[in-house]
Amino acid sequence: MANVRAPQIQVYDSVTEVVCEPEFSIKVRIYYEDTDFGGVVFYANYLKYMERARTEFLRCKGVNQSELFAQERRLFVVKSAQLDYLSAARFDDLLSVTAEVATVRRASMQFVQHCTQAQPADGAQIGKPVVSARVTIACLDADSFKPCAIPGALKMSLSH
Amino acid sequence: MANVRAPQIQVYDSVTEVVCEPEFSIKVRIYYEDTDFGGVVFYANYLKYMERARTEFLRCKGVNQSELFAQERRLFVVKSAQLDYLSAARFDDLLSVTAEVATVRRASMQFVQHCTQAQPADGAQIGKPVVSARVTIACLDADSFKPCAIPGALKMSLSH
Amino acid sequence: MANVRAPQIQVYDSVTEVVCEPEFSIKVRIYYEDTDFGGVVFYANYLKYMERARTEFLRCKGVNQSELFAQERRLFVVKSAQLDYLSAARFDDLLSVTAEVATVRRASMQFVQHCTQAQPADGAQIGKPVVSARVTIACLDADSFKPCAIPGALKMSLSH
Amino acid sequence: MANVRAPQIQVYDSVTEVVCEPEFSIKVRIYYEDTDFGGVVFYANYLKYMERARTEFLRCKGVNQSELFAQERRLFVVKSAQLDYLSAARFDDLLSVTAEVATVRRASMQFVQHCTQAQPADGAQIGKPVVSARVTIACLDADSFKPCAIPGALKMSLSH
Repeated sequence: MANVRAPQIQVYDSVTEVVCEPEFSIKVRIYYEDTDFGGVVFYANYLKYMERARTEFLRCKGVNQSELFAQERRLFVVKSAQLDYLSAARFDDLLSVTAEVATVRRASMQFVQHCTQAQPADGAQIGKPVVSARVTIACLDADSFKPCAIPGALKMSLSH
Repeated sequence: MANVRAPQIQVYDSVTEVVCEPEFSIKVRIYYEDTDFGGVVFYANYLKYMERARTEFLRCKGVNQSELFAQERRLFVVKSAQLDYLSAARFDDLLSVTAEVATVRRASMQFVQHCTQAQPADGAQIGKPVVSARVTIACLDADSFKPCAIPGALKMSLSH
Repeated sequence: MANVRAPQIQVYDSVTEVVCEPEFSIKVRIYYEDTDFGGVVFYANYLKYMERARTEFLRCKGVNQSELFAQERRLFVVKSAQLDYLSAARFDDLLSVTAEVATVRRASMQFVQHCTQAQPADGAQIGKPVVSARVTIACLDADSFKPCAIPGALKMSLSH
Repeated sequence: MANVRAPQIQVYDSVTEVVCEPEFSIKVRIYYEDTDFGGVVFYANYLKYMERARTEFLRCKGVNQSELFAQERRLFVVKSAQLDYLSAARFDDLLSVTAEVATVRRASMQFVQHCTQAQPADGAQIGKPVVSARVTIACLDADSFKPCAIPGALKMSLSH
């Protein structure tokens, strides 16, 4: 850190990584911001992690949501969510968050998503289920907020 | 603001208010922090508003959650949530968020909650449904995180 | 909701209220979402409360930020912030958050803001300082993100 | 999931990575949750990214904050922060967030931190400064919330 700074850049640890096969997942580290005074992750925050996983899943499928919004004026919004909280995650835990498409319709699709312990801070079991969810997404016109068809190329890539 | 400051305190506008009858509700103003680049409220944030409503509901019923946690080591956590997103809320909208107990069991209770437009910023219809939810809460021991019975006094007040 | 329910609406408790004289302030209740596992309010969240106070202050001055954005394509953004964390706030505390304009320039203005205990949950002293801040806001063109003059009517109302 | 799926796990893209030399930094992807209706990152959220970088920096230095809290009852809290917002970050941008210790005292230390564009979504310049900050952290007793000395081993590792 001082005047002898080594010039090389070393990747020390990959905190969040995206895994595409055999099942799509990202890793999410739990920070101060995620917890509440009960000592565990605040329940709304899991919806953030699931959104991050869906965004990375769509990126894997070639969907750039910022271009889709800016250029094609299309937006994905959540229509419904069913969440089951199975165990608590805590500060410093590393979670695995999956995103799998269960069904695709003309203007909506349903994801099944699981948060599990990937590297618990306190020695809990790896793979322990934390939250499971079923999330339905609609494709909307960004100006009218009316439903519109999922872009054809995405729909095709989802069926493979 | 200077040395001529008027001594009186005037309540200008009640941004969040708690209404207990005929139906329990609080009002929630939508600020910058609540929205995302799609121009609407980020979907996880409705879980925050519903938690605020449940906290105020419990306060109305005489439950002080911070005392319950510090003195009796009991904690309420969410076990499951079913959310339906019916329309989008935007910056400056004022929402009404209800909290009604549907069922009470030994160590859990289920809330039905509705977010509706109370004073839309853009002239949308008052009362327009935004999000509806069914949220199941468990009472836990704050140390073991095992389920434990809902305090008797609360259970009694919920049945009236 | 059914016809046997009492028809009257009682305002039970005003959780967040806006006070304009002698000094502008809003009240902010601390909920689960605001705290972290250290048991206190997460430090970034005070910036949310200060933004809420500035939004309500501007509303008091007749500024509707959503209209300003949609119709005049102007946006207020934070250029700098100096924060001093003086004591910790906890779950269920009620804070008072002020917003006072210290200086106004052509395209920016500086706010001095204080968060203090208005109704501490645990019997701490009312008025105890929690966070003090100096926040500089710039007025930008919402499309180019270049600085532009503060609307004349607002500038005039700020000098009174 | 089915038996025709390839068994190998491929790391597709490293979203957040921790770099320790020559300068400590983490990478932070901007998701929906981070933005507001102005189209850019909400100003309070940069404090989250800086906290994440400090947590990973301390982890690199061998400090496990959850153990420190649970076993030694010590907690790091922010005493002051000076933030300069230099340019806006947007959805899908990848930021680099540094954490460098500027000064260490008995019970506090000051970090200098920079958020810069690491991989802008819209073709902006790599390395473009987004937010710079000076953040002072105090070491507290987790029960009394009184200042206490920074653990000796950490202090020693910070001076190298």
